[in-house]
Amino acid sequence: MEKESASKKADEYFDKSVSERERAIFEGAITLGAIYHQFTGVPISSDPRVVKAVEQAIKLTMELQPYKEEVEVKINKDQIKEATEEPYNYDTLKGSTMEVRVTAKYGNARATVTMKHIPGLNYDLMFIERVTM
Amino acid sequence: MEKESASKKADEYFDKSVSERERAIFEGAITLGAIYHQFTGVPISSDPRVVKAVEQAIKLTMELQPYKEEVEVKINKDQIKEATEEPYNYDTLKGSTMEVRVTAKYGNARATVTMKHIPGLNYDLMFIERVTM
Amino acid sequence: MEKESASKKADEYFDKSVSERERAIFEGAITLGAIYHQFTGVPISSDPRVVKAVEQAIKLTMELQPYKEEVEVKINKDQIKEATEEPYNYDTLKGSTMEVRVTAKYGNARATVTMKHIPGLNYDLMFIERVTM
Amino acid sequence: MEKESASKKADEYFDKSVSERERAIFEGAITLGAIYHQFTGVPISSDPRVVKAVEQAIKLTMELQPYKEEVEVKINKDQIKEATEEPYNYDTLKGSTMEVRVTAKYGNARATVTMKHIPGLNYDLMFIERVTM
Repeated sequence: MEKESASKKADEYFDKSVSERERAIFEGAITLGAIYHQFTGVPISSDPRVVKAVEQAIKLTMELQPYKEEVEVKINKDQIKEATEEPYNYDTLKGSTMEVRVTAKYGNARATVTMKHIPGLNYDLMFIERVTM
Repeated sequence: MEKESASKKADEYFDKSVSERERAIFEGAITLGAIYHQFTGVPISSDPRVVKAVEQAIKLTMELQPYKEEVEVKINKDQIKEATEEPYNYDTLKGSTMEVRVTAKYGNARATVTMKHIPGLNYDLMFIERVTM
Repeated sequence: MEKESASKKADEYFDKSVSERERAIFEGAITLGAIYHQFTGVPISSDPRVVKAVEQAIKLTMELQPYKEEVEVKINKDQIKEATEEPYNYDTLKGSTMEVRVTAKYGNARATVTMKHIPGLNYDLMFIERVTM
Repeated sequence: MEKESASKKADEYFDKSVSERERAIFEGAITLGAIYHQFTGVPISSDPRVVKAVEQAIKLTMELQPYKEEVEVKINKDQIKEATEEPYNYDTLKGSTMEVRVTAKYGNARATVTMKHIPGLNYDLMFIERVTM
């Protein structure tokens, strides 16, 4: 199917009152929810090769989702154990060990949505960092 | 932490230009992405007890996410194998075998966002079905 | 495909030296790994309806995997927050908040394999609790 | 904790009749179940950078699990769409698009366990390819 026609066909399902800003926010938010629930639980260590491989895999796969302009993933190595030769000594990826920033663009609108652990809330907060039109 | 203060603290992270409609859309979209990436891959059969248990677990857990008013999940039994005594005869849950509708409410705005397989797109489309303010 | 022939076809892929005990252990272990990596990250609260729904969904879906005789899941409510009306106050399911016991039967052998948090190891240990033949 | 003592502490939870072969099979099988249920659903395209990043992330993270000697992951690019500029044109990772081989070593035993789609079974079969002692 042509790009033009696939986009148009999809757009028909959306409430007609939805603005370009709203659509960009929608597309970004889906990817935040997706990253958290797809990748938490992955075994991890502070080894830079492991950390880099996971950051890269999340970024490149999630940028395939519709209307993504950029996905940035930063895993906080300081919060992760250094794996040793011991068999039971490694960590698993948690929402609180990563910071994720997704930029989605739809039409002339661009939304940057972010996931970050907020100690004062004791929660991995997802929020709309910036929307421009 | 008091409800009031937790909400307020979180709100401070959001771009000040974000409207109540935009916030409701944002909160709904996160949950669509979350459901797809958390639950696809779960073994499933057309046995009504199994189907009901999965629908119920998705609904009740995902309604815990912030600002959810209702999560509705409908697994299409007709697309799922009837499990038999054979050991390798069952299905796994796919985006295309479920229809999900999430209603999020923030302030005076309410957004209903939906995931549904669209045969013409060959895609499990997530879209904003309705926003009201 | 007939039960007999599906099982036989699958068996041909296995190393001929594999015993019935070994096969039962293999089938049980797959399901332990599956449960941990499929379900951690699910939102949860100490509400008995939520806890019951998740336990039931894990049990009924994972019993569909080959050669499972029984899957038992116990979520430890005492380690989970009571969700309130606050939007950011709930937990997510972790390996350490559940205890899982899978019994697999192959031929005359039966293996019970278990996942349980071991405080002294600071690890959600998966182990072979009992094998009989 | 010392390597020696962590291993020993864990071993105490295992049924005393478990052989080194059985233990190697157990440790390998957990990782097969884990890979399938952690990574299916990840967006993917046939772009070699994307494919390589996912293969590498699965390998490096899953080799952290206990008693893993090697994890090999091969994604079959021929079964995956080439992503284009169209927003809804990409694939998601399925059990049937990857072949996974895990080698676990415990004591003097080594088990190679494999996941591979078997067209005749219409199933992503996990099997014990080879055990040596």
